[in-house]
Amino acid sequence: MLKPLTSSVADALLRPKSVALVGISDDSSKTASRPLRFLRAAGYQGTIYNVNPSRSEVQGEKAYPSLSALPEVPEHAFILTNSDLAVSAIEECGRLGIPVATILAGGFSESGEEGKARELKLLETAERTGVRILGPSSLGVVNLHESLILTANAAFAEPDLPTGGIFCASHSGSMLGALVSRGKSKNVGFAGLISVGSETNISIGSICESTLDDPKITGYMLFLESLHHANDLRRFALAAAKRGKPVVAYKLGRSDVAAELAVSHTGALAGEDAVAETFFRDCGIARVETLEGFLEAIPLLSRIPLENARLRSGKRPSIGVVTTTGGGAAMAVDQLGVRGLAVVPPSAETLARMAARGVEVNPGGIVDLTLAGTKYEVMKATLEVMLTAPEFDMVLATVGSSARFNADLAVKPVVDSLSFSDKPLACFVVPEAPAALELLSSAGVPCFRTPEACGDAITAAFSRRHPNSCELPAVEPGAQRMLNECDAYRMIKPLGVTHAPFQVLDVNQPVPELPFDYPVVVKVLHDEIAHKTDVGGVVLPVANAEQLAQAMQQIVTSVGRHLPELTIEKVLVQAMDKGLGEVLVGYRRDPDAGPLVMLAAGGILTEIYCDRAMRLAPVSVEQAREMVSEVKALQALAGYRGRPEGDLEAIAEAVSAFSKLAMQTDCVVIEAEMNPLLVKGKGDGVVAVDALIRIA
Amino acid sequence: MLKPLTSSVADALLRPKSVALVGISDDSSKTASRPLRFLRAAGYQGTIYNVNPSRSEVQGEKAYPSLSALPEVPEHAFILTNSDLAVSAIEECGRLGIPVATILAGGFSESGEEGKARELKLLETAERTGVRILGPSSLGVVNLHESLILTANAAFAEPDLPTGGIFCASHSGSMLGALVSRGKSKNVGFAGLISVGSETNISIGSICESTLDDPKITGYMLFLESLHHANDLRRFALAAAKRGKPVVAYKLGRSDVAAELAVSHTGALAGEDAVAETFFRDCGIARVETLEGFLEAIPLLSRIPLENARLRSGKRPSIGVVTTTGGGAAMAVDQLGVRGLAVVPPSAETLARMAARGVEVNPGGIVDLTLAGTKYEVMKATLEVMLTAPEFDMVLATVGSSARFNADLAVKPVVDSLSFSDKPLACFVVPEAPAALELLSSAGVPCFRTPEACGDAITAAFSRRHPNSCELPAVEPGAQRMLNECDAYRMIKPLGVTHAPFQVLDVNQPVPELPFDYPVVVKVLHDEIAHKTDVGGVVLPVANAEQLAQAMQQIVTSVGRHLPELTIEKVLVQAMDKGLGEVLVGYRRDPDAGPLVMLAAGGILTEIYCDRAMRLAPVSVEQAREMVSEVKALQALAGYRGRPEGDLEAIAEAVSAFSKLAMQTDCVVIEAEMNPLLVKGKGDGVVAVDALIRIA
Repeated sequence: MLKPLTSSVADALLRPKSVALVGISDDSSKTASRPLRFLRAAGYQGTIYNVNPSRSEVQGEKAYPSLSALPEVPEHAFILTNSDLAVSAIEECGRLGIPVATILAGGFSESGEEGKARELKLLETAERTGVRILGPSSLGVVNLHESLILTANAAFAEPDLPTGGIFCASHSGSMLGALVSRGKSKNVGFAGLISVGSETNISIGSICESTLDDPKITGYMLFLESLHHANDLRRFALAAAKRGKPVVAYKLGRSDVAAELAVSHTGALAGEDAVAETFFRDCGIARVETLEGFLEAIPLLSRIPLENARLRSGKRPSIGVVTTTGGGAAMAVDQLGVRGLAVVPPSAETLARMAARGVEVNPGGIVDLTLAGTKYEVMKATLEVMLTAPEFDMVLATVGSSARFNADLAVKPVVDSLSFSDKPLACFVVPEAPAALELLSSAGVPCFRTPEACGDAITAAFSRRHPNSCELPAVEPGAQRMLNECDAYRMIKPLGVTHAPFQVLDVNQPVPELPFDYPVVVKVLHDEIAHKTDVGGVVLPVANAEQLAQAMQQIVTSVGRHLPELTIEKVLVQAMDKGLGEVLVGYRRDPDAGPLVMLAAGGILTEIYCDRAMRLAPVSVEQAREMVSEVKALQALAGYRGRPEGDLEAIAEAVSAFSKLAMQTDCVVIEAEMNPLLVKGKGDGVVAVDALIRIA
Repeated sequence: MLKPLTSSVADALLRPKSVALVGISDDSSKTASRPLRFLRAAGYQGTIYNVNPSRSEVQGEKAYPSLSALPEVPEHAFILTNSDLAVSAIEECGRLGIPVATILAGGFSESGEEGKARELKLLETAERTGVRILGPSSLGVVNLHESLILTANAAFAEPDLPTGGIFCASHSGSMLGALVSRGKSKNVGFAGLISVGSETNISIGSICESTLDDPKITGYMLFLESLHHANDLRRFALAAAKRGKPVVAYKLGRSDVAAELAVSHTGALAGEDAVAETFFRDCGIARVETLEGFLEAIPLLSRIPLENARLRSGKRPSIGVVTTTGGGAAMAVDQLGVRGLAVVPPSAETLARMAARGVEVNPGGIVDLTLAGTKYEVMKATLEVMLTAPEFDMVLATVGSSARFNADLAVKPVVDSLSFSDKPLACFVVPEAPAALELLSSAGVPCFRTPEACGDAITAAFSRRHPNSCELPAVEPGAQRMLNECDAYRMIKPLGVTHAPFQVLDVNQPVPELPFDYPVVVKVLHDEIAHKTDVGGVVLPVANAEQLAQAMQQIVTSVGRHLPELTIEKVLVQAMDKGLGEVLVGYRRDPDAGPLVMLAAGGILTEIYCDRAMRLAPVSVEQAREMVSEVKALQALAGYRGRPEGDLEAIAEAVSAFSKLAMQTDCVVIEAEMNPLLVKGKGDGVVAVDALIRIA
């Protein structure tokens, strides 16, 4: 856990009154020469101290031999040296009481044993002296409202960057350059951009959190390579949601399907990217998958309060599309459709309202103005009617060739309609028309040059869920251990999950009378045996007391052969039960994202199809119902083709109950699984017939 | 079936020496005024005849009152009038012997009964007089090599369109405008662009086919809204593949999941878009899903001969990535990864070869030149080594900020490496850098401004399959009818598919001795009953002759209650059999794409997961093996987690055999299905236990 930022540290990080450039170079071809040049070009108003032990002058300005030689203690040191010198510089920062230092160099824990030792030393110095470190491997900090271009990123040689309300934080420093140049071409204005490097001492979440009260910042873009320090990110996201400030994330690693080694199926099913997806949605963060969608998301999200993100209630958001080009609109509709959004036609009333304003269109999915003409009045009147029509959750305008030859005229009706209502409005520009895009973007209309980015950003906006602000108990983990099946039932029963009745028997005692009927299943009971079948530890069906006695002996023999080091003393005897189907309910504390609950199709197909729903835990029954509706295999238990209906409501209740493992205060539950949970007929509930829990 | 184009008609369509503009307008705000303006602006060298009954002069040029009044018979009439006048104009074209007419107007079969009648009249005239019609609803024809801008598309007001080798045919006229403007910004040169409209008389496939021998045309872009006249498209695609001319398609309708009403499950599983996808792949057409991928595909495809499209043999193509920006390359790698392509690291030998040329990089997935520097020599040497390294099927270069500030220097090593080998080479440009993209594109390097377009185009290129040039027999369909199960077995048995032994019994006769053991299943046998279970027409298991007699009576009673109009005389008695699993093998003659064969997971999950593989029929056993590997559920029969292995080879043989229904010469098989086909243990084969065939 990294410490949060105090407001004075945040000020020193993001709006320092003075900066020291340690190791600033006089050679303009060197990366280490850039920050001074960029700061001067931008007109930074604070004091700049150049530190270079071997020169008295750098780039025509005075240079000091060391931080200690400066006439005052600067607020922020940007350390441009190699990694060894950086460690000494941090020591000096600490001694002098410089609150924040940014380290450009790599060569720390990512590069072998020597680097790891270097990083340890660095962090020990930070801890001891109180200096806070951004990076290592940070390209620096940019605050356009303060003309602070404190970065070594070549992309910031760019003149005339538009200033705006977006704060962008990135694990990749070089991506900030790409975003700035792409943003500039559409006049997307940034408030600040920060390259957080390897987050050894200051996390991306706490940086963003520290800016939440800045009225100049209206939204956040996060370019992420990992979910490290996700707890800070979550705290930030929840606070941002409360203030209505939208957050959009682009995360690398979509293709990483490598599952962790874990004792449960849940581990294998919860791949890294799926966990990230769940984390973002449940934190109210819009996750995009296209670069253009990333840049255009903020103005779109600003108009879709999290409360209105409709996908969460199972209802698909309804998009109205108006166009001056049939083919172009069809592409956008297609891209919305493949992502599960519905393009709905205008109602009869809406058509009548259009007609009353002189706009005659054919009924149909898209409002096609090709016939009505591409005049300003026609598009404006149509947009005004659509923006106030109750059947649309949002309106998308598609603009054709006119956007290229008469950008101003073509997009003016869209720009002028923006303030007509609060309803989200976006624009897809079909031809190559950079001027039209710039006009739209400058006016705050989310606008797209590709149909796929259009579909991506709109889907991401509507896929967010209102974040769950439940406080998780702070429990210190102890040593990890498995619970045996009996202890696992004892932990989940109070949560409200039903299991099949069982009795624990001593294998060395005669078989007693059972409190339930035969046939039964007999399972080895031992803390260290998670996969009972693999060691011959399960016998079924067992029809009577005599067979039960044999089964116990068989288990002792078989397990003893597989695991000779264990002494088997007990078995768990359980009533045989069956359902219409079975599911897997899993729980897992992800090292980054925290507690997760999962519902998956049961049996072998679970893993083959990866058919499952996941949420941050705990979840309400209502949230769990949504999960039930997401697992495809459960369609088979929802009255599909006249088949008997399963108790889907009981599944939802069990998932919600199981997810309360996140609230356990006497231990930390690392992972847990009911597999299978038998699903009985509607009204007859669900029954766990196996359970596995690992705690710490 | 539309007639193909003769070469003289093709000439008149695409390179007419004279054109008549019928209904050309003097009012420059009118759409119907554009073609004359565009032709003059482009410097068209042929003769232009203006036809306007109400003016002697149009746009300062002489106008004739009618086609008949022209001093010669023009080769191509572009009819700009409304739909009624267009019909008369076609009549006049026919009378005069004008070989080709293009109709701009809509208002034909797409708009109600009146329009349908108008279209019938139009086509009757064409048939009677021999005039060939492009459209209706065609925006016209553009041939840049002939300076022929015979179009009413506003986008062609664009000056200085680059001329090149791409021929683009589109169902949507307006999309041509978007493609031209987007292409121009990257200097993508077109040879011709044609808006085919509603294809009533000339198909998109036959137009493209007619241009195949034009040496100026090096590749084809198809923007499609449907697969109508797919037979022409297939013939063209096969001929293009033979000549090594690449074809790329962007098709609308990805989101259309509405399945047709069909008697078989195969119909429900073969959605329109899935059929299109199968059609494209099997015809060797690259199907892209991004607009930018569409524009950049041709130069990429040109370097990947269909023989090398590696995905088809189950091996994933290996991409080598070199970059000057870590974050940017990671985005591209991610987008390749989610689409199933493998980014592979350089081998030790390749690293050594790089080192010998002074390029030191860290081993790892991506060749990252950030440390080695972004100098020309470094990138050039690295590319030369990678382009000749056997572990890469293709090389992707990722260029960072330098592409924005020094476009020429940044992309020069990539451009200069293109001719170094035949290996495909592409470039992803991370910042906004239009000049760099133009340089790359002009030089013939496929280049992308978004990682998703990059992943899309590369995947599409490697997903093509070498087209199957099998000639299907021409059989005239008769009246449609179902075959009963017995007749269905009789048709498929000679193809080589095994079914469970059966005997047909007369329900009014005593039960005879059966040639196989009890238990058996008893099924009603009647041509008009496709879904036997739904009418109580199946009884199982039946243990002996007495039960069999009862079962026959039960079936007669039950079916009689459901379908009182039918007389049930026969049942089919079949040996009960079981397998390790079951699959569905389907066959279907798609009205557009032609014969298809499908393999799907069996049972209820088939439809829930839509887990299936599809190909144009017939398929070889090798192709069928590939299909087996694509059905996820079959992993469960491939030795998954120690489960018994099923006879996957026998499935492949059965699929290949069943697909030969496409070669039936005595009738047309409309649809057919074996569901289920039981899969026995490895070496024990497969057995059909139900079969359904509909013929015509």
